[in-house]
Amino acid sequence: MHYELYYWTGIQGRGEFVRLALEDAGAGYTDMARVHGDAVMQPYLDGKVEGLQPFAPPFLRTGKQVIAQVGAILDHLGPTLGLVPDASSRRQQALQLQMTIADLVAEVHDTHHPIAASKYYEDQKHEAKARAASMRGERMPKFLTYFESVLKHNGGRHPLREHSYVDLSLFQLLSGLDYMFPRRMQALWPTLPQLRALKDRVETRPNIAAYLASERRLPFNTNGIFRHYPELDGEQ
Amino acid sequence: MHYELYYWTGIQGRGEFVRLALEDAGAGYTDMARVHGDAVMQPYLDGKVEGLQPFAPPFLRTGKQVIAQVGAILDHLGPTLGLVPDASSRRQQALQLQMTIADLVAEVHDTHHPIAASKYYEDQKHEAKARAASMRGERMPKFLTYFESVLKHNGGRHPLREHSYVDLSLFQLLSGLDYMFPRRMQALWPTLPQLRALKDRVETRPNIAAYLASERRLPFNTNGIFRHYPELDGEQ
Repeated sequence: MHYELYYWTGIQGRGEFVRLALEDAGAGYTDMARVHGDAVMQPYLDGKVEGLQPFAPPFLRTGKQVIAQVGAILDHLGPTLGLVPDASSRRQQALQLQMTIADLVAEVHDTHHPIAASKYYEDQKHEAKARAASMRGERMPKFLTYFESVLKHNGGRHPLREHSYVDLSLFQLLSGLDYMFPRRMQALWPTLPQLRALKDRVETRPNIAAYLASERRLPFNTNGIFRHYPELDGEQ
Repeated sequence: MHYELYYWTGIQGRGEFVRLALEDAGAGYTDMARVHGDAVMQPYLDGKVEGLQPFAPPFLRTGKQVIAQVGAILDHLGPTLGLVPDASSRRQQALQLQMTIADLVAEVHDTHHPIAASKYYEDQKHEAKARAASMRGERMPKFLTYFESVLKHNGGRHPLREHSYVDLSLFQLLSGLDYMFPRRMQALWPTLPQLRALKDRVETRPNIAAYLASERRLPFNTNGIFRHYPELDGEQ
């Protein structure tokens, strides 16, 4: 099975959650926009290709199926790539955790774009600083303490007691937060020992380590979802 | 099978997407917090009950399984309640559409709370007016035109060519937007004929009509996710 992944060039973005699963499993895939340019996605977004129209990238093409939404893509890939437990109840738990990760990712985006996704950061910087205070003070501890608690209740190593795409997505989430909020994360890490260890473990998985060292892994930057603006991390 | 639904009392909120599925299918369920008070949810949220800890309500208990996240709950209920197509590829399409609905619902919440979920609306009203302009001008047309297009590409009546929980969730989304943005929706409706017809059809399904006429259906109010503040609908 060869997959086609469709996602914006130039950023990790939401596509990275899918990329990490494909890379970890050693699956064959083409990162279509990086090869053919962003325009390759347009016919899909315009509903001109067979299959269910995606609202936005990322989407995955596998045979005639076109699947959008990170959680739905990973739910589809999980069994084939061996990245989710077999039992349907456990597969649903993975989906539930992935959707909670997605909720925080959406809040991360709105931290630097609290007023309008279509406007420049600079035009909503004042509001972004106010929203970032709530993100640092309330939302990050709430979400991260939750994930730490799920880990603790499930033996400490894996949220689903075995390796799954949720481990990979937590790695990506934590890496992004570490890039965006280094000061805040430095203060939070001591309260999150299991998440810290999970992040380190994922980083050293052979396929992930090879991917992170490759040119396919773009660096975080201030066009993506996780953006490092010192003023949003509480610096004056 | 008797279900236990856990969601905050006093509002429709995200719980309503689950409630509509249970009601449409005539499933037996207890709305636990309405019977026992909101405190009945706390042990679950504190991770003190067997099963995967939910991050937030709504969550559903069925036997020993506890499932949170609207999309994951509906993905679980769909096959049992006959509210999703049988084929796994179609079931995934339902999930994908439901997650896109959830994305808009999250944006609706942040329209009246763009700075901090923990602060009063009145303390972020100025920013909310700015965000609402983007919601009315960009996000609502973008999402609703997308759903209209999906309907059109699939025969016009149902996004999945047969009745499913996605129809019910679209009904709830459109009802909420109609309550929150009556002026804006009045202008948009003529561009959304298939969605308009879908909303009317769902409303007259016998079990839904009975539910909407019952005391179990709370009215929309300004504590929920969809809130009617005239100033956010473009009134001066």
